[in-house]
Amino acid sequence: MNKKQTCTFEWLPDRSSRIPIYRQIILFISAQIQSGAWEVGSQLPSQRDLAAKMGVNRSTITTVMDELTADGIIESNFKGGTRIISNTWALLLSENSIWNRYVNLGSFKSNHAMIQAINRLEFTPGILRLGTGELDPALFPGELWKKAVKSLENIQSLNYLEASGLYQLRCAIVQHVKKFGILATPDQVLITSGSLQALQLISVCILSAASVVYTEAPTYLKSLQIFQSAGISLESIPMDEEGILHHRIPGKDSRTRILYTIPTNHNPTGITMSQRRRQALFEYCAGNRIPIIEDGAYEELYFDNQSPRPIKQMDQNGNVIYLGTVSKTLSPGLRIGWVIASEPIINRLGDVKMQMDYGASSASQWIMTEFLNTGMYEQHLEQIRAAMKNRCDHAVRVLRQYLGDQVSFRTPTGGFYIWLRFNRKIPMQKLFEEAVKVGVLLNPGDIYDYAPTNALRISYSYLSCEEFEEAVERLAGIIKR
Amino acid sequence: MNKKQTCTFEWLPDRSSRIPIYRQIILFISAQIQSGAWEVGSQLPSQRDLAAKMGVNRSTITTVMDELTADGIIESNFKGGTRIISNTWALLLSENSIWNRYVNLGSFKSNHAMIQAINRLEFTPGILRLGTGELDPALFPGELWKKAVKSLENIQSLNYLEASGLYQLRCAIVQHVKKFGILATPDQVLITSGSLQALQLISVCILSAASVVYTEAPTYLKSLQIFQSAGISLESIPMDEEGILHHRIPGKDSRTRILYTIPTNHNPTGITMSQRRRQALFEYCAGNRIPIIEDGAYEELYFDNQSPRPIKQMDQNGNVIYLGTVSKTLSPGLRIGWVIASEPIINRLGDVKMQMDYGASSASQWIMTEFLNTGMYEQHLEQIRAAMKNRCDHAVRVLRQYLGDQVSFRTPTGGFYIWLRFNRKIPMQKLFEEAVKVGVLLNPGDIYDYAPTNALRISYSYLSCEEFEEAVERLAGIIKR
Repeated sequence: MNKKQTCTFEWLPDRSSRIPIYRQIILFISAQIQSGAWEVGSQLPSQRDLAAKMGVNRSTITTVMDELTADGIIESNFKGGTRIISNTWALLLSENSIWNRYVNLGSFKSNHAMIQAINRLEFTPGILRLGTGELDPALFPGELWKKAVKSLENIQSLNYLEASGLYQLRCAIVQHVKKFGILATPDQVLITSGSLQALQLISVCILSAASVVYTEAPTYLKSLQIFQSAGISLESIPMDEEGILHHRIPGKDSRTRILYTIPTNHNPTGITMSQRRRQALFEYCAGNRIPIIEDGAYEELYFDNQSPRPIKQMDQNGNVIYLGTVSKTLSPGLRIGWVIASEPIINRLGDVKMQMDYGASSASQWIMTEFLNTGMYEQHLEQIRAAMKNRCDHAVRVLRQYLGDQVSFRTPTGGFYIWLRFNRKIPMQKLFEEAVKVGVLLNPGDIYDYAPTNALRISYSYLSCEEFEEAVERLAGIIKR
Repeated sequence: MNKKQTCTFEWLPDRSSRIPIYRQIILFISAQIQSGAWEVGSQLPSQRDLAAKMGVNRSTITTVMDELTADGIIESNFKGGTRIISNTWALLLSENSIWNRYVNLGSFKSNHAMIQAINRLEFTPGILRLGTGELDPALFPGELWKKAVKSLENIQSLNYLEASGLYQLRCAIVQHVKKFGILATPDQVLITSGSLQALQLISVCILSAASVVYTEAPTYLKSLQIFQSAGISLESIPMDEEGILHHRIPGKDSRTRILYTIPTNHNPTGITMSQRRRQALFEYCAGNRIPIIEDGAYEELYFDNQSPRPIKQMDQNGNVIYLGTVSKTLSPGLRIGWVIASEPIINRLGDVKMQMDYGASSASQWIMTEFLNTGMYEQHLEQIRAAMKNRCDHAVRVLRQYLGDQVSFRTPTGGFYIWLRFNRKIPMQKLFEEAVKVGVLLNPGDIYDYAPTNALRISYSYLSCEEFEEAVERLAGIIKR
């Protein structure tokens, strides 16, 4: 540990942000420490220098230093210098704390360290998020939103709702999914706080510690701890260009099992399962009595040709649980998702949902109902599809230009993601850390897979074309070094 | 089973409701069947008679009958009569269903049958809910709400938030709880989807199957399955007029344990713990290293004198987890609650919350921030306190008038509830069923206790004074029979 080392940076607080300046600085410094860019033991610049460099008042810096000192992250010495003493967010409990026995007792696992780091670093002002699976905030439909919110003004009360969610919203969803071939009744729909909660409910309602979930490899599900926390095993099934290789799913197994798949615009590979493969997969699973969870998060985010019909559309016997959400199309902050399944499943999940959180926000449910019933959602989807196609075309050009000889990837036909494989072996942890140092946040492929990948999940959904190019240029710079 | 028996009723659909008429009728008929008021095997009135009696078109009744027939709840015979054939909501799976092995596999228990019945019956149009722990929808502050909702119009995007929730809302909560003596920083606050989710998080984060939760007897917690589903034991501690009898909590136990208490306007007894008892309880628990969950859901719903300071206010070492919510003061539909605890606990709960549902609705969080920051929430609270005191006074008079010689109860000093104990033994299940037949929904005390109670949880929060009197009059009628 080199105590002489000092911390350098090129960063300014974002004055247009709703986050107070002093808090932005705390987040920035914390992120630098967390990422390892500023090491424990190194010296912070003087308060005067920090204030000058960040263009803020000296008093703002004093507030920041007081808070970081109270949190045990930095320490001043008698010469007036300030040193980083901890990278643990002051999370360590005092030896005598009443909570010592408790804090890691529960069954629910902590998030992967890498994902915890990403979650925190996402809030570093100015960082370029090259792997974030969210829409660019600039694509938020402000004018449509204003109209939708107006409908809230006439609400006369917001009491508890039926377990399965607002009836009007369930009707609107029934109409909406009919457009891509899913036939359901409102009683076969459950409103959830995003698809994540649907998975959480499935894990505690219809599976047990002796169950197994088959998934594509790689898969979004691997980045979560939901099933693992319930003691459920995940098993990987390989994919090809047409999607999951259904015949690699074990035909017989004494355990209860279920298949989780994202057939359309797969996360993280971007692959869309062919119609032929969907049919074969559906028949294979029906024949082997394996129920299917079909995650349709990216269903409607196709570019040129409409996606193949969902697997749920073939389902006459209720074998498929279909998950929908507006998190990838409109707003994750609304926390609106839905499950479409047979009534016994909906009732079981709804009963537990009532016991867990009493349902999703009514405000969000009314807003979403308005979006669907007025056609505003459909109108917005068209804009998003056009914007994503545009960004994807640009992203492909940029990746070829800066990294063309280093990587291989497929050109997506929809969704948010490019699965970027490096031609030579790259140490991913190191790449992640170096990227943070130059202000780029990456999602290493290892988060999503069962084995090391040598790949990145690149997303063109979050950054503007200019920011995307800037981020890729910085990334290329690191790769070359 | 008497097949000649026919179904009688006095009920009209509510034309001012947002629920379509045909659906109101389905809910009404389903509720009659579920409650046993209309028995399996009995004959429905003719479609013509139903239409005339409910004042609706014949075609509406046809729609209702078609849906109930499709669900396997009723059956027409060749003579044109219609008979009830199932009271299972068509939930039974076909013998061959793929889901047979799954539907009860999960670790999360189903709700108590009685609570499931109450949850369903609550949606029967026109039923008088004498035990419902919610505010009367008529008390919803429509004008303030309109103002708060306006603030949503300027939102520029609604993406994922920090794990602990909207920073601005956490700051507003810090300011709010300061009013009753709780000092906290925004980093010690976690936003949840109501207090129910806070309990859910606690059950899977900091307790294990080998843990025990001590509670008052009776207690709201007994009506939930959250802790039991995680294999955690609940143990009852008796109360007196001043609250929980702290010295009855075991001093030593090798298991990890925690105390759950509602010290202020207790659910279901209405008791507020004295200042003296709070102090004694806090010291006893600290001395025995038992952390406390303090549920402050009814903290601010006092009538004449402000409630004693929360236990959390004495807490210097972070031994107390404080739960707050707006579900009982403003709107359960917003799904906004908060946890105030030491940072390691907040971080652990927040990390798992991110994995379960990615946080509460941003729309709800912004609305609530506006309510708090503008003083509208405080203004609304004053109105609710006045309304509740008024209703409570009325309720006490009405109960004395109609049931004075049959029951004993304490006069509440705040909150929603009267714990109504019958002087002679009453068969509670029978009382519940008879009450449903005359359009009154009860919350039998047994839901909340560890042993049979011979009591009801009466709530004066949901019904208007006129409705309350009507419900009590009907209840008294049954008791007398």
